[in-house]
Amino acid sequence: MSEAKVSVLDWGFLHSDVTYDTVHVWDGRFFRLNLHLDRFSQSMQRLRMKLPYDRTEIATILANCVFLSGHTSAYVDMICTRGASPTFSRDPRDAENRFIAFALPFGSVANKEQLERGLHIAISDTVRIPPTSVDPKIKNCHWLDLVQGLFEAYDYGAETALIVDTNGNIAEGPGFNVFAVKDGRLRTPANAVLPGITRQSVFDLCSELGMSAVAGDIGPSEIKAADEVFITSTAGGIMPVTKIDAATMGDGKVGAVTRRLMSLYWKKHTDPEWSSPVSELASLINKP
Amino acid sequence: MSEAKVSVLDWGFLHSDVTYDTVHVWDGRFFRLNLHLDRFSQSMQRLRMKLPYDRTEIATILANCVFLSGHTSAYVDMICTRGASPTFSRDPRDAENRFIAFALPFGSVANKEQLERGLHIAISDTVRIPPTSVDPKIKNCHWLDLVQGLFEAYDYGAETALIVDTNGNIAEGPGFNVFAVKDGRLRTPANAVLPGITRQSVFDLCSELGMSAVAGDIGPSEIKAADEVFITSTAGGIMPVTKIDAATMGDGKVGAVTRRLMSLYWKKHTDPEWSSPVSELASLINKP
Repeated sequence: MSEAKVSVLDWGFLHSDVTYDTVHVWDGRFFRLNLHLDRFSQSMQRLRMKLPYDRTEIATILANCVFLSGHTSAYVDMICTRGASPTFSRDPRDAENRFIAFALPFGSVANKEQLERGLHIAISDTVRIPPTSVDPKIKNCHWLDLVQGLFEAYDYGAETALIVDTNGNIAEGPGFNVFAVKDGRLRTPANAVLPGITRQSVFDLCSELGMSAVAGDIGPSEIKAADEVFITSTAGGIMPVTKIDAATMGDGKVGAVTRRLMSLYWKKHTDPEWSSPVSELASLINKP
Repeated sequence: MSEAKVSVLDWGFLHSDVTYDTVHVWDGRFFRLNLHLDRFSQSMQRLRMKLPYDRTEIATILANCVFLSGHTSAYVDMICTRGASPTFSRDPRDAENRFIAFALPFGSVANKEQLERGLHIAISDTVRIPPTSVDPKIKNCHWLDLVQGLFEAYDYGAETALIVDTNGNIAEGPGFNVFAVKDGRLRTPANAVLPGITRQSVFDLCSELGMSAVAGDIGPSEIKAADEVFITSTAGGIMPVTKIDAATMGDGKVGAVTRRLMSLYWKKHTDPEWSSPVSELASLINKP
């Protein structure tokens, strides 16, 4: 990994003109790889980027990254940058789009202790970059608002942050969506958020369990009054939150709905409808 | 330059958690280097970044980049990234801030022909990332809104773009500020724009010439009705605009105010109060 680098002249670095997606591998199996490949392809299309690899070739490259890294549980990045122009041209159409892929050991927003006791989150009044500026459906690297929120959360003594949309409602945090549970019903912000794939998994799990889950506005006071709160990310899955600013969620312990969803989420990692073996895709593995 | 790279794990790439500044060298002299160093230092401070180099050391590194590149006119970048954490930690405080500097041949937003006849610009309704999300005083790489505007301008048949602020007034373009001249008075957007150093130079030149120049709102219809329009950037200085969307500025030729400012701007490049020889700063040059 120390040798994986990008040119300082790449628009992906100089202008954050880049999109990416991250899929995870758990115990040798990709989790919902197709959904990640769909989103990656849509993001590239919206940014008018093209790669000389088709969907199957990208999947094979990712599988080979995992295989070569030796990780059985991994965080796998696929990145497409605008690229650089050999003439230093200021016209992005002159740049050659580049593909970068790598596999890291699986990482989580919440560590083991935090998964057991729940995270402590602070709400920052920094506004998530609005959809009129950058389409949040394009998974992008524009994070200075999220980093600002994170530093404010650290100042406050919290462990991570939620930032707001232009109306002051909750948007998302650095790398995660958020859900509030009230009277057994789930709600997650609809505006100015990435449509996360773990967020989608929660909708799918709720549908299977016959639970109500909708996307809509949630104000700061509303989320603080929730029975349970959890965040969702490919980096960690479904992760409980037990404190927001000075407010304690419910009795301060990880709630029953959150536990039930976490358990089902991890069970899906062996379900062939939700996951697929890395070895099926890697061309470098000697198959019998 | 082909060897100048940044780690794909650097937050500067993965989260665009980076600031930079660009100073230019013209005929062996830095132009307003102190103003660029001031802004770079303020940007770093606002992002809570620190480097192990003081101001003089940074200036010396930049001068050495120019000297080693052999360019007598150059575009010189200083970049500070959040860096990467050796443990893949998701806490930006664990990252080691990195410094990158390089010199490229001097480049301009407008080419020779465009400087003579004036640029053709299209106004996009993409909204520049608002100050409530990212402080525009921090020179940043969050450009997806500007790139979107640029592609829309190309679709329209224009050469570059202006995008708007949240109120629909003109903000800025990809790498430049804009000025409108009406009845001899100059006006440039105040909101959601980088306080550019070439923009500052225009204020300073106007003050010297006894001309009125203020920062304030300019609507799309107002700018299209201006007598003259020009853009400002370290990459090219003061550059005329003669067409916005379908509207022609004045008589369609580069106006008298723009020509006068362009001429004085370039004269300042030999003025010791505005510029300084690269050789004064480069430690690698054998001095007599």
